[in-house]
Amino acid sequence: MDDSLQLGKQALASQPFSVLVGAELTGYSPGWAELTVPITHQLKQQHGFVHGGVISYVAGNALTFAGGSVLGPAVVTSEYKINYLRPAIGTVLIARATVIYSSKTQAVCRCDVFVIGEGEENLCAVSQGTIARITQSSEAQA
Amino acid sequence: MDDSLQLGKQALASQPFSVLVGAELTGYSPGWAELTVPITHQLKQQHGFVHGGVISYVAGNALTFAGGSVLGPAVVTSEYKINYLRPAIGTVLIARATVIYSSKTQAVCRCDVFVIGEGEENLCAVSQGTIARITQSSEAQA
Amino acid sequence: MDDSLQLGKQALASQPFSVLVGAELTGYSPGWAELTVPITHQLKQQHGFVHGGVISYVAGNALTFAGGSVLGPAVVTSEYKINYLRPAIGTVLIARATVIYSSKTQAVCRCDVFVIGEGEENLCAVSQGTIARITQSSEAQA
Amino acid sequence: MDDSLQLGKQALASQPFSVLVGAELTGYSPGWAELTVPITHQLKQQHGFVHGGVISYVAGNALTFAGGSVLGPAVVTSEYKINYLRPAIGTVLIARATVIYSSKTQAVCRCDVFVIGEGEENLCAVSQGTIARITQSSEAQA
Repeated sequence: MDDSLQLGKQALASQPFSVLVGAELTGYSPGWAELTVPITHQLKQQHGFVHGGVISYVAGNALTFAGGSVLGPAVVTSEYKINYLRPAIGTVLIARATVIYSSKTQAVCRCDVFVIGEGEENLCAVSQGTIARITQSSEAQA
Repeated sequence: MDDSLQLGKQALASQPFSVLVGAELTGYSPGWAELTVPITHQLKQQHGFVHGGVISYVAGNALTFAGGSVLGPAVVTSEYKINYLRPAIGTVLIARATVIYSSKTQAVCRCDVFVIGEGEENLCAVSQGTIARITQSSEAQA
Repeated sequence: MDDSLQLGKQALASQPFSVLVGAELTGYSPGWAELTVPITHQLKQQHGFVHGGVISYVAGNALTFAGGSVLGPAVVTSEYKINYLRPAIGTVLIARATVIYSSKTQAVCRCDVFVIGEGEENLCAVSQGTIARITQSSEAQA
Repeated sequence: MDDSLQLGKQALASQPFSVLVGAELTGYSPGWAELTVPITHQLKQQHGFVHGGVISYVAGNALTFAGGSVLGPAVVTSEYKINYLRPAIGTVLIARATVIYSSKTQAVCRCDVFVIGEGEENLCAVSQGTIARITQSSEAQA
């Protein structure tokens, strides 16, 4: 495992909520990040689908890791939007985020969230947002 | 407690992920919903703030309940966007969502997320999105 | 007319596209801006409604002026989202934007776009976005 | 020129605002649309860049044409978000939109807006949104 993936895994492991959800960083290189979440009962809503909040979590966190891969570890998610496409039914969620554009201070990223089940991989949500580097001037904002 | 709030609380209690997060429905009337989340360690990120995924969860779910308050219980969140304003540090998160416009098939809603701590209530995120009623023709979409 | 409104009107008049659309700044004070667009044939789409691009223009520009009212004149719109609610049929569009939160470097704003016709004022779109102050470090981004 | 592109060009030509902006439909096939806008003085803001409202217009309209390419001509844009990446300086804007997912009633699409100048093509904005088919039940909404 390369160093950056190892450091990313440590960052994720230091987030109690990511541990609660059970997310794993399964890919991490400059401009790209992949998060994987095994689907358990406690991540679902009342109809047996993965709760939209889990899909938002994994999309938002993948965007943040992608942004951090080019901006450094001191980043925050400024904003994002998400479109849900299909009910997420399956065994694993995978969020893949890429950096579309970055300056010194922020990165605009997109993320695709897939659900894996019975040998199929289906796109279940798409997201787009802004990750900002935390600077002295932005601390009040962060 | 009125009937609609009671029914809303049952709907929330039937979502395993909402139980995991510890969310409570604290207000629910036509065109309006309020969700409250006591802040625990497991809802935080590495710097001690509430994880952005929790804030997204509560914003998105409040939007959904607000939409459901006018469209009926068979609804899904189609899409939303969120802007994070401040680190969420405190003891309780409160998300208040209102319906801005609704047709027979969907509602556009806004949500404000506040964090309460040491007697202060601070706005920490704002959100806007679309809630859709599930119909036969939209089932493939939902 | 107060000085800030006068300066704002000059800024708008210096934008050739705003002149083409026929927009007027009808309100401008710290944290708030109002743009008005008389509806002409050339602003419509094929069904006689105001084109969505005009509504986006006026929402986005009102967001920018609202942000500029607290950040100063050197600002850019980083991002926004818009939900269209109703066909815009009438004689005048009015976009009213307010600052929800601002730091030294950016402002998060919301905008409501109304269409006026036959004595009625109807909300036809709602928007939310981020306005950034142009700084040396953000110039590449702007 | 194939029939669908020809029909798309007629639809665009029937929008007075698209004629005012000078947009051309330069690509149109199932799941995909491309709009091109020659950059003229009247499309600019006060610093000589293309006005953000023009970029929003072309992104939003390309999303709509992409959605219409799979849903049929009776469509409306429900919502979208846009992130501006760079000042648009050049001679031509090109917006390329693709359908990410579609059901019978709506399509979720993404759009990339490029600015062409001095032999370079630079991405200047990215967008994501929902296009809805107009049905009897959605007419109030449209």
